[in-house]
Amino acid sequence: MNLDAAKAALAHLELDDTPASVRAKSRDFFWYSPVLKARLDHVVADFVVSPRNEAEVIEVLRTCHAHDVPVTLRGAGTGNYGQAMPLAGGCVMHMKNMAGVREIHPGRVICEPGIVIRDLDAITRAQSGQELRMTPSTAATASIGGFVAGGSGGVGSVRWGALRDLGNLIRLRVVSMEAEPRIHDFTGEELHRVSHAYGTNGVITEIELPLAPAYDWISTFVAFPDFPTAAEFGARLADEDGILVKLITVCEAPTASRYFQRFRGHVGEGDHVVLVMVAPHAMPAFGTFLTRWPTGRMIYRSDAPDWPRDPGVAYEYGWNHTTLRAIKVDPAITYLQVRYHGPDFLSTIERIRALFGPELIQHLEAMRENGRTIYAGLTLVNFTTEERLDEIIRIHEDLGAMIFNPHRYTLEEGGRQSTDARQLAFKREADPKGLLNPGKMIAWDVPDWDYSTIYSYAGLRPAP
Amino acid sequence: MNLDAAKAALAHLELDDTPASVRAKSRDFFWYSPVLKARLDHVVADFVVSPRNEAEVIEVLRTCHAHDVPVTLRGAGTGNYGQAMPLAGGCVMHMKNMAGVREIHPGRVICEPGIVIRDLDAITRAQSGQELRMTPSTAATASIGGFVAGGSGGVGSVRWGALRDLGNLIRLRVVSMEAEPRIHDFTGEELHRVSHAYGTNGVITEIELPLAPAYDWISTFVAFPDFPTAAEFGARLADEDGILVKLITVCEAPTASRYFQRFRGHVGEGDHVVLVMVAPHAMPAFGTFLTRWPTGRMIYRSDAPDWPRDPGVAYEYGWNHTTLRAIKVDPAITYLQVRYHGPDFLSTIERIRALFGPELIQHLEAMRENGRTIYAGLTLVNFTTEERLDEIIRIHEDLGAMIFNPHRYTLEEGGRQSTDARQLAFKREADPKGLLNPGKMIAWDVPDWDYSTIYSYAGLRPAP
Repeated sequence: MNLDAAKAALAHLELDDTPASVRAKSRDFFWYSPVLKARLDHVVADFVVSPRNEAEVIEVLRTCHAHDVPVTLRGAGTGNYGQAMPLAGGCVMHMKNMAGVREIHPGRVICEPGIVIRDLDAITRAQSGQELRMTPSTAATASIGGFVAGGSGGVGSVRWGALRDLGNLIRLRVVSMEAEPRIHDFTGEELHRVSHAYGTNGVITEIELPLAPAYDWISTFVAFPDFPTAAEFGARLADEDGILVKLITVCEAPTASRYFQRFRGHVGEGDHVVLVMVAPHAMPAFGTFLTRWPTGRMIYRSDAPDWPRDPGVAYEYGWNHTTLRAIKVDPAITYLQVRYHGPDFLSTIERIRALFGPELIQHLEAMRENGRTIYAGLTLVNFTTEERLDEIIRIHEDLGAMIFNPHRYTLEEGGRQSTDARQLAFKREADPKGLLNPGKMIAWDVPDWDYSTIYSYAGLRPAP
Repeated sequence: MNLDAAKAALAHLELDDTPASVRAKSRDFFWYSPVLKARLDHVVADFVVSPRNEAEVIEVLRTCHAHDVPVTLRGAGTGNYGQAMPLAGGCVMHMKNMAGVREIHPGRVICEPGIVIRDLDAITRAQSGQELRMTPSTAATASIGGFVAGGSGGVGSVRWGALRDLGNLIRLRVVSMEAEPRIHDFTGEELHRVSHAYGTNGVITEIELPLAPAYDWISTFVAFPDFPTAAEFGARLADEDGILVKLITVCEAPTASRYFQRFRGHVGEGDHVVLVMVAPHAMPAFGTFLTRWPTGRMIYRSDAPDWPRDPGVAYEYGWNHTTLRAIKVDPAITYLQVRYHGPDFLSTIERIRALFGPELIQHLEAMRENGRTIYAGLTLVNFTTEERLDEIIRIHEDLGAMIFNPHRYTLEEGGRQSTDARQLAFKREADPKGLLNPGKMIAWDVPDWDYSTIYSYAGLRPAP
C-alpha cells in the first residue's frame, strides 16, 4: 500500500486526512453490538475522499488500485453490521457529494447513491406525488446507496417485501476496481451480484428504484394488555389486503414505557404497543378492524393528536430505531435480527418468549415474504456475555427462527452463513486485487471457514 | 300493486313503458346460465324509471311503496346471477342518469352509482392520476353501483382482495323504501348490510371508494405447454410482492386458440395461456421472473406489439369476459364460480381437472384472500343437463372447492347458502313491505329453505 502516492495523486479531489474527521467517517453504527464494539472500535482509515461524480469515482479506484490502497464505501454510516468500517485502513470513499436525482417517471426514479433518503423522498413527492416503496427507520440521515448496499428491507416491507425481492430494485450502475475501472449496468438476476454486497465488489454510482404513491401516512399507536394478542393483531392486520399500511411494529412491554420517552404517561409498564402507519383513506377500515379487537386501545393517532408532546413519525420508533431508543436509555441493551416464518410463526415467537423471559424483549416487524405475512424480529437483548449471546442465537435456530447475526461484520455471517457465488464471482472480476472493503467477504479470504466462531479478518489493522 | 296510480304519479320523471324497451331493461346477463335462461327468460317489468338525483329516487320509492309496486334496481345490467331481473314485475329503477363524480381526493373518490366504471376511471385518472383498485372485466359498460351491489371482485383483486374486504369500500349512502324513505350513510361493519345485496334492502345513491395509482398497465400473454405449470406460474407470480400486477388469468387449453379470436395463429390447441397486466416499471422484474420458467413463452406484450390485429386489453379476456368469449363461439358453454384456497389449492385444481377431463375447461383468476394468494375459478362447462351441472358442483364441494353458484338468482344460493343476518335485518327496517327486488333474498321469503333444490320464488310472474 503506497498511501502517500495515492493521496498525492488524489489531492485535487475533496480529500480529508484530518485524524478526528477521518475517524468519525470510519465508523458506522457497529456499536449497537458489544461484540463488534470490542473488535472494531479502533478501526480507522487513512484518508477520506468524496468524489463529486462518476469520473472522480473512476479516478479514485484507478489510483488506489495502482497503489494497492483498500477502498471502503460509505454513505451516511447508519449501517449496523460494521459494513462501512475500513478494517484494513486505506481510503474511505464517502458518497455524500453524489446526491443528484436524475429522472423521475411514473413508478420509478433514477438517482445517485449519496442522496439522503428523506431528501430523495421529498423530491419525488414534490415532483410526482410518489415515494420510495421502502426505507430504513434512519431515512432522515441514511443514504440510498448505503441502503441498497447494506439494507434488506424496512418501512414499507409490510407491503412490498424485501429489497432483494424481484421488482424492488430496477437497475444499478456499478464501477469496478481494476487497472482500468469498467462500468456495468445491472438489471434482473445480475442485481444480486452487487446489491447487499457492502461495496465489496463494486461502487454503485447510479440507482433506479420503483416508486409507490405518496400518502400523508397517519401514525397510530395501539396498546394491548397481552403480547400474543398484539402480535396476532399485527399479523392479521398485515393480511388485510384492502387496508393500506406502511408499517406494523409490535413492541413488547416494557419497551414503550421504558424506552420511548414521549410515550411516558400514555402507556404503563404492562402495555404492549403496536405502531402502525396507515394511509389516510384506509383509516376508516383500520378503525373497523380495530373494533374487532376488544382489548386493543388506540392511544394515539397523528391526525387527531392529543398528546402534549408530539411523538413524531411512527417509523422512527420502528425497525432499528427501536433498538437505538433502547440503547440510549440502557447501554447494556443490544439486539438480534430474526426471521419468523412458516405456518406457525406466532407460536414460535411465543415459545421463544416463554423460554427467555425478560432477558429478551420482543420487537416484531410485519413484512411480506413470498406472498405471505411474516415477522422480522429485532429482539432487544439484555447483554451479558458473547458466549450467552451465541447461545441465545443457537436456541433461536433450534426452534426454527432464522438469525441474521448483527454481531458479525462479514456478509456471510450476517446472512445465511454460506457463500454467495454471484457476489464472489463478480468480486473476482471487478476487484482482482481484493481491495474493495476488505475483510467483509469470507468467501474471498478463507473459503473453507466453518462459521462456528466469529470470523477474524487477518488483515484487520491492530489497534495503535 | 296499483301500477296505473304509480305510473301516473311518476309521469313527470324519465319514465319508459314501451314494451320492447322495458323488456331490454328488464334483463341482465342471466343467460350465461342455461338454468336461469330457462326460468327467467320471460321476466319483464311494467315500466322503467330513471331518476336524475336522490330526490327523485326518494320520490319513486315513496310512490311505489304507497302503491305496492316492486322496485328492482339496475345499472348497466352486466350482472350474471339474474340480480337485476324484476321477478315480480313492477318498476325497474335504472340508475344511468345518476352518473356524477362528486369529489376526488388522494386515495379516494365519491361518485354516484350509475356512472360507467370506465368513465369513472377516466375521470379519476385525468384529474388525479388515480384509478379504481378493482373493476369487473365489463368495466367498459358496467356501472359502479351495480358492481358494488352485485360484484365480488375482479381485475385488481390479485393485489387488493375482494370488494367485501375491509378498506375496499369506504362509504355507501342508501335510501330506504318506506312510507317516508330515509337516508343512511354506512361505513365500517354497516357496509355489509347493503354491499352485494342486489338492491334488496336499499337504493345506493352515493359511493365512496378507495383509489390506487393509475399506471399504463402493460398486457402480456405467456403460453405454457402444460397446465399445472401455467397455474403454478400464476400463483407464484401473485406471491411476488415486489412485482406490481393487476391481473393474472390462467386459461386452460384450448380456451385461447378456440375462443379468443385474435389469438388465432399465435397459440396452438395445446397452449395454456396466462394473461398478465403489469405496471410498466415492473416489466423488468416480470421479465426476470419469466426467465425462471423455461417452458413459458411470452407471445405478446402490448408495449411492443407484433400481432397484426391488436388483441386489446388483457382484462377483456379475463374474469367473466373469458366466459362471454367462449359462449359467443359455442353457445353450449356455461360456467361455474369456484374458490380454491387452503395450502393445497393447486393440487385441488389438478384433482378436479383429472376427474372431469374436457367436460370442464379450467379458467383461474389469482386473487388475495386473508393475505394469501388463492385462485378464483370461472370454469367453463360443457353443459348437458341441470342434473349433471348440480352433480359437478357437488363433486367440487366434496373435493374442498367452494362454489358460488351462478345458476341461481338468490343472494343465498349464489353465496354461501346461509342467511346474511345483517342484510335481512336491514331489509326488515328499510323495506318493510318487501318490495325491493323481490324474490332474491330467500331469508325474507322462506327462512327455512333447505337449498337442496333451486329456490323457486312464489311471486315470480308466470310467462304470459
